[in-house]
Formats: sequence, structure tokens, C-alpha cells
Amino acid sequence: MFTGLSAFPLTPMNEDGIDEAGFITLVERLAAAGVDSIGALGSTGSYAYLSRAERARVAQLAVAHAGQTPVMVGIGSLRTRDVLNLTEDAQKAGVSGVLLAPVSYQKLSADEVFGLFETVSRNLSVPLCVYDNPGTTHFEFTDELHGRIAQLPNVASIKIPGVPADPAAAKARVDRLRALIPEHVTIGVSGDAFGATGLNAGCDAWYSVIGGLFPKTTLAITRAAQAGNAAEATRLSERLKPLWTLFAQYGGSLRVVAAAAELEGLVKHPCLPLPLKAANDLARRQIVDLIKELELS
Amino acid sequence: MFTGLSAFPLTPMNEDGIDEAGFITLVERLAAAGVDSIGALGSTGSYAYLSRAERARVAQLAVAHAGQTPVMVGIGSLRTRDVLNLTEDAQKAGVSGVLLAPVSYQKLSADEVFGLFETVSRNLSVPLCVYDNPGTTHFEFTDELHGRIAQLPNVASIKIPGVPADPAAAKARVDRLRALIPEHVTIGVSGDAFGATGLNAGCDAWYSVIGGLFPKTTLAITRAAQAGNAAEATRLSERLKPLWTLFAQYGGSLRVVAAAAELEGLVKHPCLPLPLKAANDLARRQIVDLIKELELS
Repeated sequence: MFTGLSAFPLTPMNEDGIDEAGFITLVERLAAAGVDSIGALGSTGSYAYLSRAERARVAQLAVAHAGQTPVMVGIGSLRTRDVLNLTEDAQKAGVSGVLLAPVSYQKLSADEVFGLFETVSRNLSVPLCVYDNPGTTHFEFTDELHGRIAQLPNVASIKIPGVPADPAAAKARVDRLRALIPEHVTIGVSGDAFGATGLNAGCDAWYSVIGGLFPKTTLAITRAAQAGNAAEATRLSERLKPLWTLFAQYGGSLRVVAAAAELEGLVKHPCLPLPLKAANDLARRQIVDLIKELELS
Repeated sequence: MFTGLSAFPLTPMNEDGIDEAGFITLVERLAAAGVDSIGALGSTGSYAYLSRAERARVAQLAVAHAGQTPVMVGIGSLRTRDVLNLTEDAQKAGVSGVLLAPVSYQKLSADEVFGLFETVSRNLSVPLCVYDNPGTTHFEFTDELHGRIAQLPNVASIKIPGVPADPAAAKARVDRLRALIPEHVTIGVSGDAFGATGLNAGCDAWYSVIGGLFPKTTLAITRAAQAGNAAEATRLSERLKPLWTLFAQYGGSLRVVAAAAELEGLVKHPCLPLPLKAANDLARRQIVDLIKELELS
């Protein structure tokens, strides 16, 4: 399940609770589009902002509405105790895989992070994707640590935070990591601006935020790269450059994708948990124009 | 209550729960030593790793065992909804003040952080201390933002993350912030290595980790600085330099202070929530020696 396009939907929510109808709409849309897997409760799914009960409910809804599409859910939490509880809930919900980031408040050491993955991987009955996202976890994996964790039971994929923009450098980066991990462990790229370059460089999967909202466009890029048509994948991704620029302007993809989902009428407004706020009115006008111009919806 | 020595005790815990006896020992020790206030559930108190129910319980225990010493508790959480719930619990427990850090998973904007403090300050019946700790929250306050937040109702203090090592530069830094905030809002220094320099530079309070375990030594530094004896405060702090070096070696104060509390027999081992681990055996030998040599206990 950790190959091709893995699409990460929002979990739309407000101060009163989860917009379940909105979430179901997003999940059904992804299944219908034919994405290869759904990554619910990723960073885009705001897993860190939800209670244990809410996360169990979202995992259940995702599985119930994804049809035959495999669902992976995020089980990250500050405390190993809580990660183990979330693992149990996710497995009970019938997920096909889990995604674990070393979330931190106190800065973690490599030894502490290895200990976390060791404990969790021992308690799993589904495959695990290692979630390397220093932008939110503030933990920097070394390739050596990735290599050690990838040997643990049930570890099946590594979600890396982008690749160098230069194709040769990107390939060298993926090859370097590949040499340190078992053959059955896949590598997936994230950071949507790096999707095409990552796939062209030999990543097995694209863990995509924009894929969680606009699967059509993202699938076209993925299928081109998978068919060995690197030039076409790059061309399709370059077309989306104004979107990558907006992401950079608004502190990452989340606030822009949240505004886009609201503007498309797929979820209620507001859809992010306070103190987070979706992109402002100025950005919204740009987003409306871009969705039309790039034929995203 | 936001002046003098504010001592931040550990919340000793393991995978089964909170070591309540250990926590009570630490709190009673601080009250007996005559610290000016107790900062329970700070970063040292691992607030971010506990459930709402556990945090309510710790707040109740702190108030019950602090005698006449005012207690402040941390109410930080990723989500505004949860911060408001924690505020209510803290106030019900009878705390004298609350401490709020803009905890983040998604990087926060200045506008989002202001919105958080605006909402919380409106819902308070006790004074609030703004907790500026970029090392754990990954949010960098500007002095301008501090100035705006300090105007909000119930804001009574700002806990800043250290000061420059040079006394003149430290004074300039404190003066610059002071000029932007109302007169009734105090400034407290944190980062124990900066305690004496911060107090000498005009900070009203020292929010201290080491003060939460070894109040005697920390009070001596505080009282010297308060009496205008900057040289003596500096001398006493310089004596503790080997401790500041250990903090730096072990990724901050927490893992060292946790090991020290275990070694002193004040709390059960282990006392930190996994994946966090207290300092290792090598550090423990150094800590035992330092406690003796510096007459800390």
C-alpha cells in the first residue's frame, strides 16, 4: 500500500467538533478518483489537535468510506503511552497501515526516537510508515537512524520531507537512503512541490497534501512518473508552481488547502482548529483564481 | 506573585501514572524553603505529556501542599479549546496564576498567537504569565507582540528565555522589553544559567528549573540580586557552572534534574514519560559528584 499516490485529506473541524459530513465527502472523493491509498490523520488531517476519541472516530469514518482503498492513519503523540493507545484504536478501526512521527515538546535524542519506534513496532499488527517531518516534529533523522529503524518489524515505508530540486541530486539522495534500508521498505516523498522530482528520482510513493483535495491533477503527475515519463511529470508539476508559491507564503500547505476546501464547498467554514486560521481573504481570491486557471477541481 | 524566585518542580511520572508522593515531596520542600512562588506543570513539570485529568489532579495537589506559597500552573496545549478547559480546571483547583506557552505542531503566526492570548485572557479570573520558550514551542515572540499581549486583561508577567551573557547587553535587552509593556507587568528570566545575570539586569523574577529541586542555592542567588549585590549573585551562579555545562550536554535541564531528583531519592525511578529518558549512567556519576561538591541538596 505504500506506493503510488497516497492522498492526505483534511479533517475539517471547528470549536464544536469534527465536520464529519465534510470529512466523508473528502474521503469518498479520493476513493472515487482512484488514489492508491488514503493517509487520514496526517499533519494535514490535524491529528495532533484531536482527542483520542476523536481520532478513533475519524479512523473509523475513513475506513468505512474509503471502499477498497487502503487507509493509513497517523498515530503520533508526545507520549509513548498515548501512541500505544492510538495504535490499538487504529487497528480496531481496521486501518491497513499507520504513520508515526516522533512528535516532540522536549527535543528528542536519536536514542529516544529509536526507543519509541522499537516499542511501537513490537505492538503492531499492520505495517508502519516512518514519518520524517522536521518542520512539525523538530526532530532531524539521520540516514543512519532511518536505517536502524527500517530493520524493525512491521516498518514498511519512510515518508521523507522533500528532495533536492536538482534531479541528479534528488536521485543521489534517494539512492543514499535506499542503500541503508531493507528492500521491502519503500520511500515516499512529501512536500508537494517535490512530488514529481521525488518520484522521478526513484521514490516509490508520493505522500501528498494537494492529492488529498485535488486527486485528479496529482494522479496525472504520479502516473506519468510511474510510466517513466519524467518530463511530463515535471511539466504537470511546474504548472502548479503558483500553488507551491502560495504554500510558501502562508507557512505551509495546510492553511491554503483548508481555504481551498472551504471555497470549493466541500467542508464547512472554519475548518481548522483554533488557534490555527485558514488563509485570509487576499489569499482566498488568489486560490479561487488558481483553482479555475489550473483546472484543479 | 510574579517576582523573586519562582521554582518549577518536576512532575515525576512513569508509564503507569504520576508519582504523587514524589510530587508532594518536591512541593512541600519548596514551600518549606521559602520560594516566592511555585510553577507547577511548567516544561519541567512535563505538562505537555499529561492528560487533562492528570493535569487537574497535579494542580490540586500543588495547591494543597504549597501552604501559603502561591502556585502557578501551565495551561498550554496545541488547541485553544483545550487551553480553555485547562484554564477552568486550574482555576477550580485554586491556583493563584497560570502560565501559557503558544505550543505548536503547525508553525504559528503572530496573528494566531495573539488570538490565542486574547481568547484565554478574556476567560480568566487569575493573572497570567506569558511563557516565551522558543526551544519547546518553536514560536519566536517579537518584543512588539509581547507589547500587544501585555496590554490584554489579566496579563501580569512575561517569562523570557534567557538574556545576553554580557551584563550591559542583558540590561539593554530587559529595558527594551520593559519600554513596551505596562508598568504592572513583570519580566522573569528563565534558562538557569541566565538567572543571576537576568536578575542583575532588572528582571523582577527568576523562573527556575534548578530552583524546583535545589531551592536553597537558588534562593541565595535571588536574594543577593534583590539586595543589589550583583557581584555576589554572579559569584554564586558561576559556582554552578559545571551544572549549566551538564544541562547543555544533555539537551537541556530536564533530563539532568530528573536524574538528580532520582539520585537524591526524592522521586521514584524512572520519573520521566517515555520516550523521554533521564540522563544516563555516565551523567549520573557526574551529578552525584556535583551535588556533593556544590552542596546543593
